[in-house]
Amino acid sequence: MTDLEELREAIKKFTQERDWDQFHNGKDLALALSIEAAELNEAFLWKDAKDVNIGKVKEELADIFNYAILIADKYDLDVKQIVLDKLSWNAEKYPVEKAYGSAMKYNEL
Amino acid sequence: MTDLEELREAIKKFTQERDWDQFHNGKDLALALSIEAAELNEAFLWKDAKDVNIGKVKEELADIFNYAILIADKYDLDVKQIVLDKLSWNAEKYPVEKAYGSAMKYNEL
Amino acid sequence: MTDLEELREAIKKFTQERDWDQFHNGKDLALALSIEAAELNEAFLWKDAKDVNIGKVKEELADIFNYAILIADKYDLDVKQIVLDKLSWNAEKYPVEKAYGSAMKYNEL
Amino acid sequence: MTDLEELREAIKKFTQERDWDQFHNGKDLALALSIEAAELNEAFLWKDAKDVNIGKVKEELADIFNYAILIADKYDLDVKQIVLDKLSWNAEKYPVEKAYGSAMKYNEL
Repeated sequence: MTDLEELREAIKKFTQERDWDQFHNGKDLALALSIEAAELNEAFLWKDAKDVNIGKVKEELADIFNYAILIADKYDLDVKQIVLDKLSWNAEKYPVEKAYGSAMKYNEL
Repeated sequence: MTDLEELREAIKKFTQERDWDQFHNGKDLALALSIEAAELNEAFLWKDAKDVNIGKVKEELADIFNYAILIADKYDLDVKQIVLDKLSWNAEKYPVEKAYGSAMKYNEL
Repeated sequence: MTDLEELREAIKKFTQERDWDQFHNGKDLALALSIEAAELNEAFLWKDAKDVNIGKVKEELADIFNYAILIADKYDLDVKQIVLDKLSWNAEKYPVEKAYGSAMKYNEL
Repeated sequence: MTDLEELREAIKKFTQERDWDQFHNGKDLALALSIEAAELNEAFLWKDAKDVNIGKVKEELADIFNYAILIADKYDLDVKQIVLDKLSWNAEKYPVEKAYGSAMKYNEL
């Protein structure tokens, strides 16, 4: 088993033991993920990045991975594959010669 | 290399080729992740989960993993470890006998 | 009519002319608001606050007010009253003598 | 004073009494607003809109108005004007004859 598969199985076991599948439609899972993303952002609110509480980052980031893996599982998406596919696509949208050192969106480059 | 390490290396290579590390402080990475989470949510807006466009889910979820992996790398967090740690902690907050079949938060159980 | 009532009536007229009430349940309205909030955040992504595009702030902030007013209307909430009530409550959670010059949350003060 | 001006003055007074202006750059205000939007969304998580806790909606919506008004003030934006301007613009993007009864985005209509 790869490490991503291992995580998926651990998360699914946790969920099934609590009979939580009934709540886990894609829409609410995406909503839950965005709420965790907001909690991660809260760790940085009113401060410089360097002053963040790493323990909080660790915890909220874990929650984000948790829901992201559940969503991938819900839609039978292979995490490794979709990330590599997106990188290929982004490489076309952001060619090195245009995007080098620029934070602009592809449609502004 | 594990799958997660492979993804991290591919993402870092992409970023370095474009000299984007300069923009990638933790605060903006967390902000970027929450924006991608909102784009994922947009795939479900005004509709039932079953009517979602899977291609859009795939794409936005990939972006979320991309930033989540960059944040983990920024803070030297081991993705597998933090997710398993959080599951252990959640198992204490949500014991099976109390949380079974309930969508309540741990502080309401 | 107050300003807030005038805005509410203009927004409701716009919505009713398009028969959009059918989509405007509270859950999706809240989701729409958070997506607009993310678009506002995108105006600040990878940059200092001073470099923001004000036109984009103006547009996204308008969308946020639009949905916030629709949600208030959906639940028969008086915007002025709920904001003043929350200020009173916050005044108790954040007494001047403890909160002066501090960005900490009330439960950390 | 209009009711929007009254709210703005009450919010600014609250902020100034606590010397919080120093934290209120546009980027962090927008971040704070999106965190409150996520808290509003949490009121709807794992449930139907009809089962929402209205007290929680009221409270989180008040926080959203609070930050939205602070952002408008920060950029000298007239709330009433920007909302009416956006409605006019949206009326062009979503003409009644095309948008009637449809939840599609303007670029898909």
